[in-house]
Amino acid sequence: MTIDPLQIIHTSDMADIALGGAFLGTGGGGDPYIGKLMAEQAIEANGPVRVVDVDTLDDDALIIPVAMMGAPTVMLEKLPNGKEAGNALKALEAYLGKTADAVFCIEAGGLNSTIPIAVAAAAGLPIVDGDGMGRAFPELQMVSLTMHDLQATPMVMADEKGNSLVINTVDNLSTEKFARVATVEMGGAALIALYPMRGRDAKKAILKGSMSLIKSIGRIIEAEQKANRNPVHELSTQLNGHRLFEGRVHDVDRRTEGGFARGTCTLSGLGPDEGASITLEFQNEFLIARRPDGAPLAMTPDLICLLDLETGQPITTEQIRYGFRVIVFGLPCNPQWRSKHGLELVGPRYFGYELDYQPIETLNG
Amino acid sequence: MTIDPLQIIHTSDMADIALGGAFLGTGGGGDPYIGKLMAEQAIEANGPVRVVDVDTLDDDALIIPVAMMGAPTVMLEKLPNGKEAGNALKALEAYLGKTADAVFCIEAGGLNSTIPIAVAAAAGLPIVDGDGMGRAFPELQMVSLTMHDLQATPMVMADEKGNSLVINTVDNLSTEKFARVATVEMGGAALIALYPMRGRDAKKAILKGSMSLIKSIGRIIEAEQKANRNPVHELSTQLNGHRLFEGRVHDVDRRTEGGFARGTCTLSGLGPDEGASITLEFQNEFLIARRPDGAPLAMTPDLICLLDLETGQPITTEQIRYGFRVIVFGLPCNPQWRSKHGLELVGPRYFGYELDYQPIETLNG
Repeated sequence: MTIDPLQIIHTSDMADIALGGAFLGTGGGGDPYIGKLMAEQAIEANGPVRVVDVDTLDDDALIIPVAMMGAPTVMLEKLPNGKEAGNALKALEAYLGKTADAVFCIEAGGLNSTIPIAVAAAAGLPIVDGDGMGRAFPELQMVSLTMHDLQATPMVMADEKGNSLVINTVDNLSTEKFARVATVEMGGAALIALYPMRGRDAKKAILKGSMSLIKSIGRIIEAEQKANRNPVHELSTQLNGHRLFEGRVHDVDRRTEGGFARGTCTLSGLGPDEGASITLEFQNEFLIARRPDGAPLAMTPDLICLLDLETGQPITTEQIRYGFRVIVFGLPCNPQWRSKHGLELVGPRYFGYELDYQPIETLNG
Repeated sequence: MTIDPLQIIHTSDMADIALGGAFLGTGGGGDPYIGKLMAEQAIEANGPVRVVDVDTLDDDALIIPVAMMGAPTVMLEKLPNGKEAGNALKALEAYLGKTADAVFCIEAGGLNSTIPIAVAAAAGLPIVDGDGMGRAFPELQMVSLTMHDLQATPMVMADEKGNSLVINTVDNLSTEKFARVATVEMGGAALIALYPMRGRDAKKAILKGSMSLIKSIGRIIEAEQKANRNPVHELSTQLNGHRLFEGRVHDVDRRTEGGFARGTCTLSGLGPDEGASITLEFQNEFLIARRPDGAPLAMTPDLICLLDLETGQPITTEQIRYGFRVIVFGLPCNPQWRSKHGLELVGPRYFGYELDYQPIETLNG
């Protein structure tokens, strides 16, 4: 697809970014609407945010990713303000004794693709055009930075009450474990700053161009919606995607456990899929789409997105309700995730499925 | 009782201190034997430890308590070395940007009355003659320091793998909650440094003379053991104690949950208590001793100690085994704990018992 490089973010860009972020959130990453409001407010108060190509940054530049951690279902009820979101960044800067030169999106998922924009605006810093996942994933070690041996720590977590933690661990999986239990203790959601990295490392380790991609996806969805067309056809063409299933939400089983929103969602086929059914399983994000006999249609790390059948609006796992008419759309993941190390981090076996990874284009060839 | 002020700790003092610490540990605080070994090793390598009266310290002196946190049952299998124990202190000093002038025992319980001696020896620092509990308690906000509005944070936790946390919270109960879940994630036990305090605050807030008291209690137990007498009579006389029950361990129900060793222990009477029975309930430490009809013999915050019937040796909750012949000994707590604030922190209702606190001397008048 043609992606227009995003160079500056005005409030008028936030609708597209939130839409694209929700799409790449693959059901997780939190409700983009909240992050959009936070970012719009911060840009109005502090001016637009500059988007920088990582390759233009100094090798010694300090880049700090910021995000929310926790179950999106909880985030919905625990709206952070811009100050809280910036507190984790400030606390990590204070701990390091250095100030950040740019902020970064750890994941291209809804809330976490927009909150860093709010933080960047409030701090007067640029945001790097890239992310660590090329989508959203439920755990914090699941980033390209881990594949490139960058440390998640020192990491700061902060809650709205004024509690904060500085975490130092021996590996990124341990960081995830400590941060996850602390997130639960913080009421289910926390603001975090982690993976502080130098320009030279970021140039090698990040997935480049994500902010521009998000904006372009959002623009396509919006343009198609305005033309009263479902954007699935256009997205499919532009992104090498797969229309996997069309159906009605028949059953949703959702629970918040261990700081995650876990569950399953069953769809009964409509239109071309009349008579068939599939099940989607999620842990914050959609992980696998299967037929009743267990045969997979798509699996992590490939992207599984749920879109409203009429409007093409991306639907997050916490928004799914009985009766929703939806399209399941699949997208190949960033090639880095298909490596041995990548699949160890985010492949089906990590999530407990006794399945070898099969690319979406093989399953739907 | 006559307490000889302890002014210096040599390796030859450690046996008495560990014995006295186990007694005041009221069943919890970890196996004193491990802390004794650590302290002896550290003193041999670095020289004896000076014990200081808090009132002789400068008002601006920085005093840092160090301890182990977690279930004693886990500590037994996860022996720290002196370096690890000192790491939490060093990390807190680094975070504060200041070095400690003295270390401090947060609790007069077995392991935690001896580990700070090992840390003090290794760091070349004196130890304050006092503690925060006058016994052992299971949670870290349960200290006289909380009653005097001192903050538990910034607090550092470290494990043997190299993971560490800096915790900042809005109140001490929150500190306990964060630290407890992190302790579980650290394998059930962690080394901590917390409640960094100035001399002027310590002078008001600590329970004074605890190290001297521990040593004196240990000396009595040892002297009586050498004379082939059960030390209960002498301890009872010297400490205004109560011999509550004599019996055989009939049943022990022990589980490690939420980072604590919780359980109950039933005793069948022997000698003067033949035909009767009582139950002891514990959460790391013994919390309540009750008759089968529910009538209490003693309850938290008063001290409930279990001693071997023959030797008078203190028995920790993790050492209790079926068939042990024991004496249950009770002791009035420090008067500060009987205040309204004290009972809110450590009274029976905090631990979930529907009971108003009754002093041990009233129950056994």
